Amino acid sequence: MPRAVREQQMMDAAVRIFGQRGFRAASMDEIAELAGVSKPLVYLYLNSKDELFSACIARESKALVAAVQAGVQPGLPADRQLWEGLRAFFTHTAENPDGWAVLYRQARTHGEPFAGEVNVMREEIVAFVTGLIGAAAREAHHDPALPDRDVTGLAQALVGAAEALAGWANETPGVSAKEAAATLMNFSWAGLENLMNGRPWQPQGQSSPSSR
Amino acid sequence: MPRAVREQQMMDAAVRIFGQRGFRAASMDEIAELAGVSKPLVYLYLNSKDELFSACIARESKALVAAVQAGVQPGLPADRQLWEGLRAFFTHTAENPDGWAVLYRQARTHGEPFAGEVNVMREEIVAFVTGLIGAAAREAHHDPALPDRDVTGLAQALVGAAEALAGWANETPGVSAKEAAATLMNFSWAGLENLMNGRPWQPQGQSSPSSR
Repeated sequence: MPRAVREQQMMDAAVRIFGQRGFRAASMDEIAELAGVSKPLVYLYLNSKDELFSACIARESKALVAAVQAGVQPGLPADRQLWEGLRAFFTHTAENPDGWAVLYRQARTHGEPFAGEVNVMREEIVAFVTGLIGAAAREAHHDPALPDRDVTGLAQALVGAAEALAGWANETPGVSAKEAAATLMNFSWAGLENLMNGRPWQPQGQSSPSSR
Repeated sequence: MPRAVREQQMMDAAVRIFGQRGFRAASMDEIAELAGVSKPLVYLYLNSKDELFSACIARESKALVAAVQAGVQPGLPADRQLWEGLRAFFTHTAENPDGWAVLYRQARTHGEPFAGEVNVMREEIVAFVTGLIGAAAREAHHDPALPDRDVTGLAQALVGAAEALAGWANETPGVSAKEAAATLMNFSWAGLENLMNGRPWQPQGQSSPSSR
């Protein structure tokens, strides 16, 4: 069997064990057994538990970013783009619960370098979402109604909401990917649409959120 | 000086050092020096670096939850409640950047028991927000238009968005607490209001997010 195929089998097993047991409790014995190889072969190919974990983070990050980017179809109206992007994200996290647990729970709770590695992926997604919101806002409104900094803030809010919902959906029996996507679509779209069209929320009372 | 006062001074110093240096790099020498006490006294009062860190998580969690709960004024319209709650949250995280870094960055990136301790606080805030959204939805709409599970999902989305924005605001020069609160208000209110009134987003195309 070619080395590349063997390595993918080892990483499939590692993502499963890391995602379900956690980084510390995961044992290289169990990973080797699940992959159907000897433990020395795992060390030969992937060096150490730390490097294996980093390799899992890299592979799962790349797969998640690719899934979201493939889901968003340029040329669709902004609300459809958001809807398709959210569906792609929640479908991916639902179909890869162990990979998502590695990224969202495990990588962030075991210090460096892992927290930094997953943060690079997060920044990539925030930058992608920032680009989409900015483009939609420019299309809706000839003037750049939304300053760049506001667009980045909205992207941060959307990504943070998506992360929290994906964790909750995977841990709550019976919440489907489509349901999670619909929750976030309903939560976020009306506000984004209003902002893109220069219609911020106006309070009835004294202090306005748009006055700075 | 009474023990309770000394302990608070030690924890003030510890939150500063943990928040700025990170859990691993923080030294007990530096914490003792900043608190103006001897290192043996820190150990005598707070036992170990791990217990000191747990004590910091507990104190900062309690302060954050109290700040958010104090900000929300029952009896106001739902949008004003949300606005006041968001302002209280972002004001607290902006005024206590080291405490927020301990909760949001440090406690979650150093495994158990710390990640679990900060998660208890997070669940408390999600439960509080779930209660507020549920009450507002019942008030807007006699029928329970929003099933309980949907309300919990919305609370998860709002809390996730708030966490991400607070981290971003504290790390981005010149983003004020009011600005962060306004970004999230504009992002979330229109969608929440629509949902409370039974008006979900309807796509122009084929697949509807409200059909399950």
